[in-house]
Amino acid sequence: MAKRILGIDPGLLHTGWAIIDAQGPSRHYVASGVILPPKNETMANRLACIFRGVSEICEKFSPDELSIEIIFVNTNAKTSLVLGQARAAAIVAAAIREIPVFEYEPNKIKKALTCAGHADKDQVYKMVKMFLPLANPKTPDESDAIAIALAHANSMQIRAF
Amino acid sequence: MAKRILGIDPGLLHTGWAIIDAQGPSRHYVASGVILPPKNETMANRLACIFRGVSEICEKFSPDELSIEIIFVNTNAKTSLVLGQARAAAIVAAAIREIPVFEYEPNKIKKALTCAGHADKDQVYKMVKMFLPLANPKTPDESDAIAIALAHANSMQIRAF
Repeated sequence: MAKRILGIDPGLLHTGWAIIDAQGPSRHYVASGVILPPKNETMANRLACIFRGVSEICEKFSPDELSIEIIFVNTNAKTSLVLGQARAAAIVAAAIREIPVFEYEPNKIKKALTCAGHADKDQVYKMVKMFLPLANPKTPDESDAIAIALAHANSMQIRAF
Repeated sequence: MAKRILGIDPGLLHTGWAIIDAQGPSRHYVASGVILPPKNETMANRLACIFRGVSEICEKFSPDELSIEIIFVNTNAKTSLVLGQARAAAIVAAAIREIPVFEYEPNKIKKALTCAGHADKDQVYKMVKMFLPLANPKTPDESDAIAIALAHANSMQIRAF
């Protein structure tokens, strides 16, 4: 049975999202886009915008599972903290609908697609186009969200063998 | 006119909450408690539990404003990241109901109550009991949530003069 996967690349300025269907080795592109919380809004209202956006996607496409990156505290701990809050707003929208949430390390997402843990955005875009020719991501956030959904689909397939 | 304030002390293990009414210099204790996300649940489901808990409090008590601490990246950046996600789950529950969110630095909250920026939990508890004798917080999280609500009430009063 096909699984419908929602991939999210969270951010307080741009939250990329993608819906793909996966069944065995086949992948089918359904939709993707970017949620854009207004820049001049408070942090609270921007988080609410991400929550509402992901809620609408869940209502419209009824995904079976959410795939999202794990955030590590990197050299800029403040940026990680902001990103963590955007990520939580997206996760909550799925979790309250009882959509299971799967978390992947950034390098594992890249490795699942490009065989390299440190692929750049251009390489990720190329692999997204190779797996899903119908996808036409217009921004890196959208491309990354598709990659996150694909990485989960590939990981599920590996587990199924 | 009295303002009903919701104070939240977020945490992935214990999220303290408090409702107080404030009018000019008068403060009235309404209710308080602790949301306890199940320890054996996934992070996503614990965030969903915080969101649902704060949503229920908003539905039941109809607060006018939310008061919550600002998180800074401290010596343990990983803890700050986890706390940031718990905080976002609480903020989103209020923000989607168009409840304005006010954020305060931890030291300013303590200073607003105890005149000392580095008051310990026992001093905070004593000041909570002095301002609101009817309050009977059973845990530090509950006491801190009342303090956060009181700090916002006191800050509003200062702004009103």
